[in-house]
Amino acid sequence: MAAANGGRKFLQQIVKMMSEGGGFDKNLSKLRVVAGGNGKCVAEMTVEKEHENSGGTLHGGLTATLVDIVSTMALMTTEKAVPGVSVNINVSYMKAATSGQEIVINAETLRVGRNLAFLSVDITNKESGALIATGSHTKYIG
Amino acid sequence: MAAANGGRKFLQQIVKMMSEGGGFDKNLSKLRVVAGGNGKCVAEMTVEKEHENSGGTLHGGLTATLVDIVSTMALMTTEKAVPGVSVNINVSYMKAATSGQEIVINAETLRVGRNLAFLSVDITNKESGALIATGSHTKYIG
Amino acid sequence: MAAANGGRKFLQQIVKMMSEGGGFDKNLSKLRVVAGGNGKCVAEMTVEKEHENSGGTLHGGLTATLVDIVSTMALMTTEKAVPGVSVNINVSYMKAATSGQEIVINAETLRVGRNLAFLSVDITNKESGALIATGSHTKYIG
Amino acid sequence: MAAANGGRKFLQQIVKMMSEGGGFDKNLSKLRVVAGGNGKCVAEMTVEKEHENSGGTLHGGLTATLVDIVSTMALMTTEKAVPGVSVNINVSYMKAATSGQEIVINAETLRVGRNLAFLSVDITNKESGALIATGSHTKYIG
Repeated sequence: MAAANGGRKFLQQIVKMMSEGGGFDKNLSKLRVVAGGNGKCVAEMTVEKEHENSGGTLHGGLTATLVDIVSTMALMTTEKAVPGVSVNINVSYMKAATSGQEIVINAETLRVGRNLAFLSVDITNKESGALIATGSHTKYIG
Repeated sequence: MAAANGGRKFLQQIVKMMSEGGGFDKNLSKLRVVAGGNGKCVAEMTVEKEHENSGGTLHGGLTATLVDIVSTMALMTTEKAVPGVSVNINVSYMKAATSGQEIVINAETLRVGRNLAFLSVDITNKESGALIATGSHTKYIG
Repeated sequence: MAAANGGRKFLQQIVKMMSEGGGFDKNLSKLRVVAGGNGKCVAEMTVEKEHENSGGTLHGGLTATLVDIVSTMALMTTEKAVPGVSVNINVSYMKAATSGQEIVINAETLRVGRNLAFLSVDITNKESGALIATGSHTKYIG
Repeated sequence: MAAANGGRKFLQQIVKMMSEGGGFDKNLSKLRVVAGGNGKCVAEMTVEKEHENSGGTLHGGLTATLVDIVSTMALMTTEKAVPGVSVNINVSYMKAATSGQEIVINAETLRVGRNLAFLSVDITNKESGALIATGSHTKYIG
């Protein structure tokens, strides 16, 4: 069953469906899920023009979107297997990611309670390992 | 001078430039600045398909993007007149905004210090006045 | 009924009970409630040695405690009249408050949903009106 | 040199000095530093009456104070060796800690830039390992 709702393929399909649905998630069309399951999801993306702010670096709004979506996918691989509804997202921006760089978005489920889930995300530069941003995401799942 | 860097027209031009630059800010192409100056910026947007998550409501990632950008425009109308660099964004999600609804994004500068600026954003439903989300945004401007 | 659970006297009694209970709220024994009701609570405090960090200014941990407690009192004056359980507290620190200064803690309830309440707090210097800190507080009330 | 500014003994001395200084840090008099150095600090505390809210569990304001102080001690063991000034503290509350329980406060420095430091804290139940709270702390160190 874990395989059914938690594997990398399952999560990549979700990204595909979401990004082709005509909504805001089209911004995630280049997101590649590299691992998933047991409350975790790891994805990668190469920073391209479409992801950047006017200064030529990864847009802070997209960073927040990655925190939102990749942690939600992590949550979907828990036993509850629900997406939930966002209550709070907090993002700290540590370092710019520039055009052409590969970033790794690493999300994990910290706790799933009866009504709330707590998720955590790190975004790093794939080559250097340097932290680009961290985020926490609280969702209502009751 | 305030007119030069703080008026509604100036801010609407910035939105136009940003959203036509080929980057992530294309997501803001339908944002309408309705007031600006003295550290404040008010913008409006009608929620359309392109702004929505797969549940058909305003996407939490776009909400965070609106917090980011509209508060940055508010900051640009202060005497410092700089965009700064994001340090932290915190968003609380209170109520969904659904397709066709008009939302008002109201940003204000709480404090501009020597090195840091603190900004605050409310997003409301234009018709009902109900809060959809609130955000705080800390920027480095040193 | 509002008078029963929302007045200034009622909230001051709560502060008294809490601060005399032998727990951590003893730190609030000098907190003076100046107004309360309809989801709001305003309190004042003079910064004294016992409230300060080793640098002689209002301790960031006490600032967070004030955000927690004064917003909880605001919540108790809503129709739900419950204290709830903290889910998330976010505090931005803008300016130091120094020994002898009077501070005003101004809390309001932004939204009470079925399961969650969203509260907001400003802490200002009473004399100058300058913002010392702002906070947001999310509570589970389900 | 690391030994000079980063060891467990050094940090325990700081806690002692701070908690005996007559200020708010007296609330930390029972905090035991168990490890420190290279941007990290681990401390432990047994939850007692003086740390509790009126519901008999670890007070959310003290939780925030622990995030503040233990992460600041972690920062003091980095090469910069400065305490900095708080810009933002964000705390997520996951589970109550009750009277008599031992908690572990685990702080690490995520990034020290030229002007800002980013710190992260986990608070867990020592026996069960369950997460009680997580926090992020941004400090200005310029």
